[in-house]
Amino acid sequence: MDPYGLRRVISPPGVLPQRAERLDPALPLGEDELSIEVEALNVDAASFRQIEGVVGRDPGAIGAEVARLVAARGKLHNPVTGSGGMLIGRVREVGLRHPAAATLHPGDRIATLVSLTLTPLRLDRITAVRPEMDRVECRGEAVLFATGLWARLPGDLPEGLVLAALDVCGAPALVLRHLSPGMRVLLLGAGKAGALVAAAAREAQQGRGWVVAADRSRAALDDLRRLGVVDDALEVDATDAVGTLEKLRRTGPPYDLVVNCCSVAGTELTSILAVRDGGVVIFFSMATSFTAAALGAEGVGKDATLVIGNGYVPGHAELTLALLRRQPRLRALFEQRYAR
Amino acid sequence: MDPYGLRRVISPPGVLPQRAERLDPALPLGEDELSIEVEALNVDAASFRQIEGVVGRDPGAIGAEVARLVAARGKLHNPVTGSGGMLIGRVREVGLRHPAAATLHPGDRIATLVSLTLTPLRLDRITAVRPEMDRVECRGEAVLFATGLWARLPGDLPEGLVLAALDVCGAPALVLRHLSPGMRVLLLGAGKAGALVAAAAREAQQGRGWVVAADRSRAALDDLRRLGVVDDALEVDATDAVGTLEKLRRTGPPYDLVVNCCSVAGTELTSILAVRDGGVVIFFSMATSFTAAALGAEGVGKDATLVIGNGYVPGHAELTLALLRRQPRLRALFEQRYAR
Repeated sequence: MDPYGLRRVISPPGVLPQRAERLDPALPLGEDELSIEVEALNVDAASFRQIEGVVGRDPGAIGAEVARLVAARGKLHNPVTGSGGMLIGRVREVGLRHPAAATLHPGDRIATLVSLTLTPLRLDRITAVRPEMDRVECRGEAVLFATGLWARLPGDLPEGLVLAALDVCGAPALVLRHLSPGMRVLLLGAGKAGALVAAAAREAQQGRGWVVAADRSRAALDDLRRLGVVDDALEVDATDAVGTLEKLRRTGPPYDLVVNCCSVAGTELTSILAVRDGGVVIFFSMATSFTAAALGAEGVGKDATLVIGNGYVPGHAELTLALLRRQPRLRALFEQRYAR
Repeated sequence: MDPYGLRRVISPPGVLPQRAERLDPALPLGEDELSIEVEALNVDAASFRQIEGVVGRDPGAIGAEVARLVAARGKLHNPVTGSGGMLIGRVREVGLRHPAAATLHPGDRIATLVSLTLTPLRLDRITAVRPEMDRVECRGEAVLFATGLWARLPGDLPEGLVLAALDVCGAPALVLRHLSPGMRVLLLGAGKAGALVAAAAREAQQGRGWVVAADRSRAALDDLRRLGVVDDALEVDATDAVGTLEKLRRTGPPYDLVVNCCSVAGTELTSILAVRDGGVVIFFSMATSFTAAALGAEGVGKDATLVIGNGYVPGHAELTLALLRRQPRLRALFEQRYAR
């Protein structure tokens, strides 16, 4: 048994697949592994832009560069950005001792929820490159380890919508763990994750509590208002802690739960100032600075629990897709934005 | 009322004191402020080394550079390292509406627990520079805001010991919040914070549970063994996740609580692999990478709560000093290491 895929690491020896220079996708399938006939790679946006910057915007050249990267490393791990992406495809074979041995069968369509930076991958052919979606359609084979997360692609929802939702499905799931009805919830950042979090929080509060969204973008706030999932929506620059705090004060006392889904750096202290003593801040923004959060709370003497937004919560994919099915207006927003 | 000291920010306008270029230490004391006759600055080690690197190791030159920095910014905020330190002194005046108005009186000796990077400070004279302790003795005046943390310096413990303990007093206090008797606790890093955490955890477990310390330094581990606060002590390189995990497996099943007090970068995944599903990791290391922690947990499908080690927990200073008083062997270790 090799739940982390250590035996597939070629170099340097002894590291985990994510840190490896090179993986071996050609080994026979392990008893606790799962293989996938790959249909498409959803490349991380930062990685896609970097590749375009190097080879230009010609789809053929982009495809060739992706193929070169994968051939060199046995995984799609952009050495400049350090990022990968996710993939979709059909199950080819499930090892007898893989955790999904009883639930997944050859031919099932799935998406991987674990980064391509640690997924053994062989590409046989690039069939299309779609820069507008950061997507590379292809034929090839990938391997998931026993600890590698995946989600079944449902037949009733557009694929673009599903992939957009799965990308951030950890956020609503983790927020629900920290939420109880009646709480005052502040959401910093009203984008994709923010919309799911607001919808999940509003539903879980069963008519009690208070959900406020804050964002720079009036359009994003208007979308949430139209969904009917927020009690208030504030146009703020969350990097301006003093100005944001001023506006937040008008919405009432400090918040029980602050959820940071911002896409920009420098919003840690705003999150900390907005939460009450004894409250919780969950940081989902990948631009979060650990030291800014830790020292920021100490600097203002705020006794808050500061949580790193772990992207994995058991059942997170099902929870998020079920939320989209239950809330037709949320689903319509995602279809309009992402179902291309 | 101005709990965050906004009115003392000279430039840029509208930011919080920590982010300010320049503070005004000369304003009349506010009703919710507290002033301190400064005796000594305990300069952050990284800042002290940087200053030595620029002006050399002559105490006079170091003192002059510190005086210049403070005069320029109205606070000791090293522009290169971004760090400050803490100070000790005697209370001069307590504003009537300061939270400590009833508990602190002029002449009381206190240490500030809030960074010098946000503490308005005026230096009148440098009286001594002690590079071996990163310490600058001086005369001057500092201001604490209503949210600024402080601790009374006790008469029964050596000052060096007290300052060393206060520097990391948030760690044992926060760990106790997440601990319950019977838990399996892993401590990565057996230095100053690690020793306090082990001692506090062992005591709180009341003879149940299991505390294991892991560190690169055999000497640090031997110190903890002699204190009798750990059940096992492992010599490991925590940046080597695979090698560390191998050794940890021999100590039993995954841990309920992992406390990261490492001083080096690259130990996030080790912490995550060591904890059980449903367990908690608390990161105190200032070398923690937010993204390495968040993406690391997702990459291996680990459902753990990842907590940023907020340095402030109410009562943390008293809790830590009381721990040192109750545990004579712990106190002796701290006296030997820090009471110079």
